[in-house]
Amino acid sequence: MILFMRNKGFLQLLPLLLLAANATAQSPDSLLIKRISDEVLVNSTAYSNLRYLCKKVGPRLSGSANAKKAIDATASMLRAAGADTVYLQPCMVTHWERGPKETGYIILADKSKHILKLTALGNSVGTAAAGISSTVIEVKNMEELSRLGEKVIKGKIVFFNIAMNPTYVRTFNAYGENGVGRRSGPAQAAKYGAIGAIVRSLASNIDDHPHTGATQYNDSFPKIPAIAISTADAEWLSLELRKKMELKAYFKTNCTMFPDAPSFNVIGEMKGSQFPAEIITVGGHLDSWDLAEGAHDDGTGCVQSIEVLRAMKQLQLRPKRTVRAVMFMNEENGGGGSKAYLAAAKLKNEKHIFALESDDGGFTPRGFSLEMTDANIQKMKSWLPLLYNYGIYEMNKGGSGSDVEPLKQIGTPLAGFAPDSQRYFDYHHAETDVFEAVSKRELDLGAANMTALIWLVSEYGL
Amino acid sequence: MILFMRNKGFLQLLPLLLLAANATAQSPDSLLIKRISDEVLVNSTAYSNLRYLCKKVGPRLSGSANAKKAIDATASMLRAAGADTVYLQPCMVTHWERGPKETGYIILADKSKHILKLTALGNSVGTAAAGISSTVIEVKNMEELSRLGEKVIKGKIVFFNIAMNPTYVRTFNAYGENGVGRRSGPAQAAKYGAIGAIVRSLASNIDDHPHTGATQYNDSFPKIPAIAISTADAEWLSLELRKKMELKAYFKTNCTMFPDAPSFNVIGEMKGSQFPAEIITVGGHLDSWDLAEGAHDDGTGCVQSIEVLRAMKQLQLRPKRTVRAVMFMNEENGGGGSKAYLAAAKLKNEKHIFALESDDGGFTPRGFSLEMTDANIQKMKSWLPLLYNYGIYEMNKGGSGSDVEPLKQIGTPLAGFAPDSQRYFDYHHAETDVFEAVSKRELDLGAANMTALIWLVSEYGL
Repeated sequence: MILFMRNKGFLQLLPLLLLAANATAQSPDSLLIKRISDEVLVNSTAYSNLRYLCKKVGPRLSGSANAKKAIDATASMLRAAGADTVYLQPCMVTHWERGPKETGYIILADKSKHILKLTALGNSVGTAAAGISSTVIEVKNMEELSRLGEKVIKGKIVFFNIAMNPTYVRTFNAYGENGVGRRSGPAQAAKYGAIGAIVRSLASNIDDHPHTGATQYNDSFPKIPAIAISTADAEWLSLELRKKMELKAYFKTNCTMFPDAPSFNVIGEMKGSQFPAEIITVGGHLDSWDLAEGAHDDGTGCVQSIEVLRAMKQLQLRPKRTVRAVMFMNEENGGGGSKAYLAAAKLKNEKHIFALESDDGGFTPRGFSLEMTDANIQKMKSWLPLLYNYGIYEMNKGGSGSDVEPLKQIGTPLAGFAPDSQRYFDYHHAETDVFEAVSKRELDLGAANMTALIWLVSEYGL
Repeated sequence: MILFMRNKGFLQLLPLLLLAANATAQSPDSLLIKRISDEVLVNSTAYSNLRYLCKKVGPRLSGSANAKKAIDATASMLRAAGADTVYLQPCMVTHWERGPKETGYIILADKSKHILKLTALGNSVGTAAAGISSTVIEVKNMEELSRLGEKVIKGKIVFFNIAMNPTYVRTFNAYGENGVGRRSGPAQAAKYGAIGAIVRSLASNIDDHPHTGATQYNDSFPKIPAIAISTADAEWLSLELRKKMELKAYFKTNCTMFPDAPSFNVIGEMKGSQFPAEIITVGGHLDSWDLAEGAHDDGTGCVQSIEVLRAMKQLQLRPKRTVRAVMFMNEENGGGGSKAYLAAAKLKNEKHIFALESDDGGFTPRGFSLEMTDANIQKMKSWLPLLYNYGIYEMNKGGSGSDVEPLKQIGTPLAGFAPDSQRYFDYHHAETDVFEAVSKRELDLGAANMTALIWLVSEYGL
């Protein structure tokens, strides 16, 4: 970086200030959002809360002891943030356990073994105690699987080697498209008589860390054991298969699906001053996969949502409408928390006017993705100039987040915080999703923008 | 992250595609830029080149043996990228060496010592062999220093505790404003008779890693030894000073400023097909501070510039104008490379129509900062819709980069690649600026946008 700056910094800022001045003419909203940003960038507790959630609680899969700890921890954080009321909302959650000692290997021509870096897919069944072993059949897509059919697949282990398409600048598009192997591959392989499935990890980089994530069986076919292997192993295996027609794989997993278990969403509320019956939700999900600390997925969304309340409280901004920070339980492998939240809203006939989720990681902001009417989108877009200086450039129609999405049933306008997505799938669902992978400034800047947006909606409604 | 995506990814992409379609109507330029982006995101060698530069070469301060290695390495990379010609351009560079065993501490009330995490400032003089020791005087800004004046400062060690202002969303603004302590603090302290200076590291986070960087003496005053201490130590020291009126510091550094040494810029050229005499420069700087691998500062700018040539060559895009990838030497502590580049341009009466520098780190793109006439800025802005899908939202008037800046003397329109700046000052000039701090996708996406911009200028001129 340049030596003496020669005023580079100031010159860079100038046109932005002019732009902001033109667009908002130092409006009260503009000044207020500057106060929000300053408060969060200076005094945010999101990073220290995240450290606690990652390092003191750790992985917190639904139904685990750690998930209970996370409930208590975030309830305390919400109280410390200054919520008027903090309460636990009962829900039923999937209770799946990986069990100990997952292992597996490929048997090479010389009878030596290449040990695989693997992890059972979430919600998958375990193998028999002896493990399973068979010939590996590689497929690159679902069409190839159905073309090979029962004749080739029966009794085999199918290797879904579907790489994330690197040409998608928005990596979630690759996740959507190339995630089919993990999501429905094992079920489809079972349809043709496979006895197991190996899935290339859904990761945007090549490394040794397997990425888990839920798979969904189809009740019409047997449930077969399914694992993900690291992208490095997937590249290796594919090369080996090209060299040699037939290779055998062995793996053993020890997963168990237990009956659904009782758990909770954690909710902190700040009562609206003028329209207390109108509810605005801002949330993330509290559960995480068991391999890592669940930092970007979704510790960051939780602590950002808590920060929204803290910042408003600290600045003595009393919202006109009721603002709720919600830590949803069981997003990763069942959605029990989001179902309970909707059910409670219906039961109490609550009026939910807006819900925002942060579940795309705690990266530097780029925009908000809007799932609402065109009229509401236009209203949101009119606020874009207010957020431009804080890194929000986009407010486009798109998905929101799976925890708030059920609220569509009661007509709630929804949004998802959409930070930069380049790094997300390096960490997602892998042991690398740890506190150290989060930048404090990126996390806080996201929280600042979320607070600003929640404040605007609480002031002006939708 | 949400479980089954429910088409979120695709929905998110849709409005962008529509926008791009509206703005550019699938123009040949739009299609070409998509090809460039795909090529870079799939086949870029920027990341592996960076790994080599960081791990095989390492720190490469001007005048060092490693700087020579870096020259050879990047010349090879430019040849491998397909440059028509690769050559070394002689320059004279600052040759400063830190020397071994920097050490220092604060003497506490109970006579125990708090060992400081410190590093000599670049270009600073060393202490006497015995080190220096005196009472510490903390100042928060330059006004405070001059208010205290010779009466208080004389014979003392001044502690410039100037934190980076966290409220600047663009962290370079804080670097510009709050960097005054490092840049001119020691010279100003010497003016009032100080015998040494301790500077709070210019870092946006609180940790144990001291950040170096050049300081500039004033010939009218003595050159006094100057160190940076980690932000954690700065916070600690400031607290201790509030508790106790007087604390003594000791430190010893062993720096030497040698006579300027001969070195080289490394240049790879791709001859223009229609206007070969019109030169477009894209570059970064090859030298780095000696504490780290110089990944973000500025290995990334170098390998991105090499990637611009590689991508064009691979896609068989022959630019109309001559494109030069330049690895500038000696940006960090002298600017010898940039001076030589300008001198050669003047000597040969070259026509430099555009120069782009990447020296703000290899982070996810946000924009380009433009140092050129308003008419040229308007032309650049007309290309913004073409780059929107690749994360470029901003083309505003601002600084470019210190290596290309001298070209202003010959009227060259300049630009700086301006990626997101939230993480830059966590690593900048510290031992944490290593290969692992760079995201492959972020690096490549920057290179793709740089290639696209260079291509547009080579096609349409300025």
